[in-house]
Amino acid sequence: MIHKAPPHIHQALGLATQALFVSNPNPRVGCVLVSPSGEVIGQGFTQRAGGPHAEVVALRDASGKGFDTSGATAYVTLEPCSHHGRTGPCCDALIQAGVAKVVASLADPNPLVGGRGFDRLRAAGVEVVVGPGAEESRELNIGFFSRMIRGTPWVRLKVASSLDGTTALNNGASQWITSRAARADGHAWRARACAVLTGIGTVLDDNPRLDVREVPTPRQPHVVVVDSQLQLPTDTNLLMNGRDCYVYTASENETKKAALQACGATVIHLPNANGKVDLSAMLQDLGQRGINELHVEAGHKLNGSLVREGLVDELLLYLAPRLLGAGRGIADFGPLTALADGLALEFKSVETLGADLRVVARVQGRDSF
Amino acid sequence: MIHKAPPHIHQALGLATQALFVSNPNPRVGCVLVSPSGEVIGQGFTQRAGGPHAEVVALRDASGKGFDTSGATAYVTLEPCSHHGRTGPCCDALIQAGVAKVVASLADPNPLVGGRGFDRLRAAGVEVVVGPGAEESRELNIGFFSRMIRGTPWVRLKVASSLDGTTALNNGASQWITSRAARADGHAWRARACAVLTGIGTVLDDNPRLDVREVPTPRQPHVVVVDSQLQLPTDTNLLMNGRDCYVYTASENETKKAALQACGATVIHLPNANGKVDLSAMLQDLGQRGINELHVEAGHKLNGSLVREGLVDELLLYLAPRLLGAGRGIADFGPLTALADGLALEFKSVETLGADLRVVARVQGRDSF
Repeated sequence: MIHKAPPHIHQALGLATQALFVSNPNPRVGCVLVSPSGEVIGQGFTQRAGGPHAEVVALRDASGKGFDTSGATAYVTLEPCSHHGRTGPCCDALIQAGVAKVVASLADPNPLVGGRGFDRLRAAGVEVVVGPGAEESRELNIGFFSRMIRGTPWVRLKVASSLDGTTALNNGASQWITSRAARADGHAWRARACAVLTGIGTVLDDNPRLDVREVPTPRQPHVVVVDSQLQLPTDTNLLMNGRDCYVYTASENETKKAALQACGATVIHLPNANGKVDLSAMLQDLGQRGINELHVEAGHKLNGSLVREGLVDELLLYLAPRLLGAGRGIADFGPLTALADGLALEFKSVETLGADLRVVARVQGRDSF
Repeated sequence: MIHKAPPHIHQALGLATQALFVSNPNPRVGCVLVSPSGEVIGQGFTQRAGGPHAEVVALRDASGKGFDTSGATAYVTLEPCSHHGRTGPCCDALIQAGVAKVVASLADPNPLVGGRGFDRLRAAGVEVVVGPGAEESRELNIGFFSRMIRGTPWVRLKVASSLDGTTALNNGASQWITSRAARADGHAWRARACAVLTGIGTVLDDNPRLDVREVPTPRQPHVVVVDSQLQLPTDTNLLMNGRDCYVYTASENETKKAALQACGATVIHLPNANGKVDLSAMLQDLGQRGINELHVEAGHKLNGSLVREGLVDELLLYLAPRLLGAGRGIADFGPLTALADGLALEFKSVETLGADLRVVARVQGRDSF
């Protein structure tokens, strides 16, 4: 890996970040076109699914401004695609535009297609450099890489708790433990996810919307409910705004299933041996449905099941400056018999948000796929 | 308050910090002597109790180097004393040395003596300016100010927990939740305290030493045990190294009391109506015994009692990057019925220490004495 990334790839990474709420389930990619004289002549980032990729946006930007792209260098944060999806292959567009050199952060993580874009470019006489900005690009697309390589989404557990780890009082009171600034930040994390997952307990207790309201976004994440007994009411707020709603269940109650389907929900029967939802199989299914980042906002029981089954990749924790004593915890698992049996994490970032603290911690070793 | 403190007062504050592990129960004070031409001619900070105060150390430093102190300005982080304690009054020393001006951060917090030093200096024709560095000096001496103004120590609860607020597993396992770097830092906080307080449960479970080993220190903090039933074993590690040990009890068992006293402990009978130790009265008593900062390292039960009785001023929390699920919490109180009934804190600092996070959070409004 090249560690001293040239400035143009940083610019391309900045553009990729603009695709954060936009491009799902496609990766967040940015592209900067630089003329042989070193002038930036075009910029772009991946648009909504079905829209043009970063390279095509940048080429259009350049030609729209009357720039000649022949001999240019394209800085792009992921390997240009070589296949015909809903859009034509970016490789062909770059070749046709006369681009002389492509500097790409990373190969496509899909082992079936990775490298073919580079091959195609090289075959057309385009110089290819791979590596600058690799770490940042992968991090920005951790969910896409997870789905492409592991077949399952990147599972991020979002929790708001007091400093002593209480997420709700014994009587269920939990609104609001953290400040508005923390909640707005939480909405931004929802906005970047392909789907928000919750449990039926939370739905029945709070009837949450789990949509993005506190920050502007061009799209809403899908919603996923773990609902072993198919108790989801048809008038739940989750079904109100036409989002895709996936209900995973262990119940074979066809009447309830039909009622939910009539409201637009997709009901998936995935029981495990204990009559609960097979959470591992659910993640496989969500991967097949194109979910990159799965944002979990659930209660301590479902959180505990996810931890116990080793399915959590990252913790997004908002800590309020308060002690609450007895109450519901972050994740209901254990009791363990040895400290070493706990879920080992490492801090990725710690920041103050208003009066609160935001901690992003990653399960050790989970990103080494 | 003057916000633009001159550089020499910053230098004096830096010197005061060097008294952190040294001067207890006297305040941490620094002094810088500056000649009329602007040259620093003497520096000092408060030595061990019974030793010279900062001003005298600085005057000796100047004369030792052959400097003339007449006409000099003394920058000092607390009002020079005017009373005869174990040392002569610093005011007299400054006057005798011909100091022309004293710039002091703060008046003495003891309402019975505060201002008299300044009066004495002014009466001798010395110009007095008060204010620069006031906030930093008070913060450095929060325990001294607490004892002088409230009559009780500044109570700092030190806790090491997992990110989900578990301090020990149900089987008692708690060593070590945090890293060596966090433990060493914890020893530095012990070192600055006048006394370390724990509960009999922790003593019987772990037989801790609660002394300062991981950082160098010229003195060890006293040790305080809350021991309602006088269960403290005479061979406890706490009594091993000749430190002052205060045992607060609700028991009138004279045999046990005599046995502990024979080992050097001071046994204080302070029962409340429930047959437990009256914790509030204990803090009053500790204040009278000259305890400025009380560093609490106890279990969730005693921590819970201290929180419930409103006796905690500050939380020193080491958070390990780990989830442990079910177990013992930080402070066993509640269950509450409303979130607003929790203990409201505000973050003072958040830092990473090795793999861990250190959070200092202050109980809201507790420092406004």
